[in-house]
Amino acid sequence: MAKLPFVFGPLAGVAPGHEFRNRLELYGAGVHTQTQAGISARQGEGAASIVLSGGYEDDEDFGDVIIYTGRGGRSAESRQQVADQTLTGSNLELARNYTTGLPLRVTRKVEARNGSFYRYDGLYRVAGYWAEPGKSGLRVWRFRLELLPNDGAPSPDAAAAVSAVAEEMAAYGSAPRRASTVLRIVRDTAISRAVKALHDYHCQVCGVQLRGGLPYAEAAHIRPLGAPHHGPDALANVLCLCANHHVLFDLGAFGIAPDFQLLGLPGQLIIKKKHLIGAEFLAYHRAHFYEPQANAGQK
Amino acid sequence: MAKLPFVFGPLAGVAPGHEFRNRLELYGAGVHTQTQAGISARQGEGAASIVLSGGYEDDEDFGDVIIYTGRGGRSAESRQQVADQTLTGSNLELARNYTTGLPLRVTRKVEARNGSFYRYDGLYRVAGYWAEPGKSGLRVWRFRLELLPNDGAPSPDAAAAVSAVAEEMAAYGSAPRRASTVLRIVRDTAISRAVKALHDYHCQVCGVQLRGGLPYAEAAHIRPLGAPHHGPDALANVLCLCANHHVLFDLGAFGIAPDFQLLGLPGQLIIKKKHLIGAEFLAYHRAHFYEPQANAGQK
Repeated sequence: MAKLPFVFGPLAGVAPGHEFRNRLELYGAGVHTQTQAGISARQGEGAASIVLSGGYEDDEDFGDVIIYTGRGGRSAESRQQVADQTLTGSNLELARNYTTGLPLRVTRKVEARNGSFYRYDGLYRVAGYWAEPGKSGLRVWRFRLELLPNDGAPSPDAAAAVSAVAEEMAAYGSAPRRASTVLRIVRDTAISRAVKALHDYHCQVCGVQLRGGLPYAEAAHIRPLGAPHHGPDALANVLCLCANHHVLFDLGAFGIAPDFQLLGLPGQLIIKKKHLIGAEFLAYHRAHFYEPQANAGQK
Repeated sequence: MAKLPFVFGPLAGVAPGHEFRNRLELYGAGVHTQTQAGISARQGEGAASIVLSGGYEDDEDFGDVIIYTGRGGRSAESRQQVADQTLTGSNLELARNYTTGLPLRVTRKVEARNGSFYRYDGLYRVAGYWAEPGKSGLRVWRFRLELLPNDGAPSPDAAAAVSAVAEEMAAYGSAPRRASTVLRIVRDTAISRAVKALHDYHCQVCGVQLRGGLPYAEAAHIRPLGAPHHGPDALANVLCLCANHHVLFDLGAFGIAPDFQLLGLPGQLIIKKKHLIGAEFLAYHRAHFYEPQANAGQK
């Protein structure tokens, strides 16, 4: 079989609901570039696709939310779990989706009267992962997957598609609350990947590299995206920051001078030759976010 | 007029689209507890409601997204801006909604053939704030407001209501991207407010108090909410953390022993007498998040 490119996210021509007769068709369409394995992942990049075929006794499928069980630890003959699963291989790549925000294509095997087929069901995010004893008593790694709004623009089905998000953002004041109190959704873009790679996940303000198995950093836009700022999504307009300095930067607690001296904080921005930062974006941030507060005196 | 309670969020019996003949009716329903001012806020708590009446030349209303101009700096006679606006009073309270995640009720004045009326349009979040020269050349404070999913459960209109969120989460791979790379949505709950107040926004791990004008901290659930963990939203199950230690806690980079010794990090959890932490929740986090990684060796 021809080697297909490894793609994250939506595929042109494959909308959620698209049906495939078998794994080979699924493979050919580029949805899942594995003919047998349930996870399609690339080492060091993340997982692009999973196929739910009911083979793991510990999976739980709620539709919008899937509690997915990691791979490994099963006997090839009996298919029973005989050893602890480890956070390595494709399990580690699934965990990486949590820290990078890369989306995961989900395909379900559907049992019908005249046989089974495969249905592509859209993009999910990895909203968390942990380990626990599986039904066998041995350790399994588990991943909470949440359906993302439909590939592309909101469709007539968007109300259903976003219900996992809507649930999390549902009515303030109602009880009991099931939502987390900080919904931190990380999106992976070419730009965010590039800036994190250039700085090896080290914060350009404090130098820290957050790490919990996998490294974590945030790409912070200097001049914000969207109305009314309309800053570009370009390397020259992003910084690699830890979560704390991202919060503080967005709050205007500090600014950055043209010579990269930090304003409002001691020290100097950590810079790399290959990461050219736009002076006009720093000026925009100073003028709109940092200086008005710095000049405000008592707040 | 009788003093009405000060309420954040949705009001029973007032759905988005509800119309009111005048400000007095709006006041009587508790939607906007000011009869003249455009912002209804309580000092130190945040803003609960705004009325958009077209009085500010710098406002921009895109429907789901509103660029709202702060108050002050205008002459009482000419209604022209004559001085810089400051981040004080109700402007500061609007900024506080950004750090706490408290939602804002938005009501629009609608001009109709037979006169004007007021329409309650639902809950918005304050997604950012900054200052810039207004049309007068003098400084104005501006607030980006984004429509939240409909009060309560997703309705048939949810597709429209969530489009601001959907836009931010739209297709990976499409260009140009308008979305930020980290969507950090903070929700204010009685529990999160309580834990932040008890610790005065200081991180229980490192003691830092993030501050950019306003203090910022995150309420981190120890045993997560939602399926399959089903941890309770209770003070005994939350910690007050900085953004970095929240990320690391969720990644299982550290755990907390029964005696509050940190595991995987040096030191001890900073505790307060009035904040009783459930030993069973710490044990759940250790077993599911910290220990599997700590024991994993090479990852």
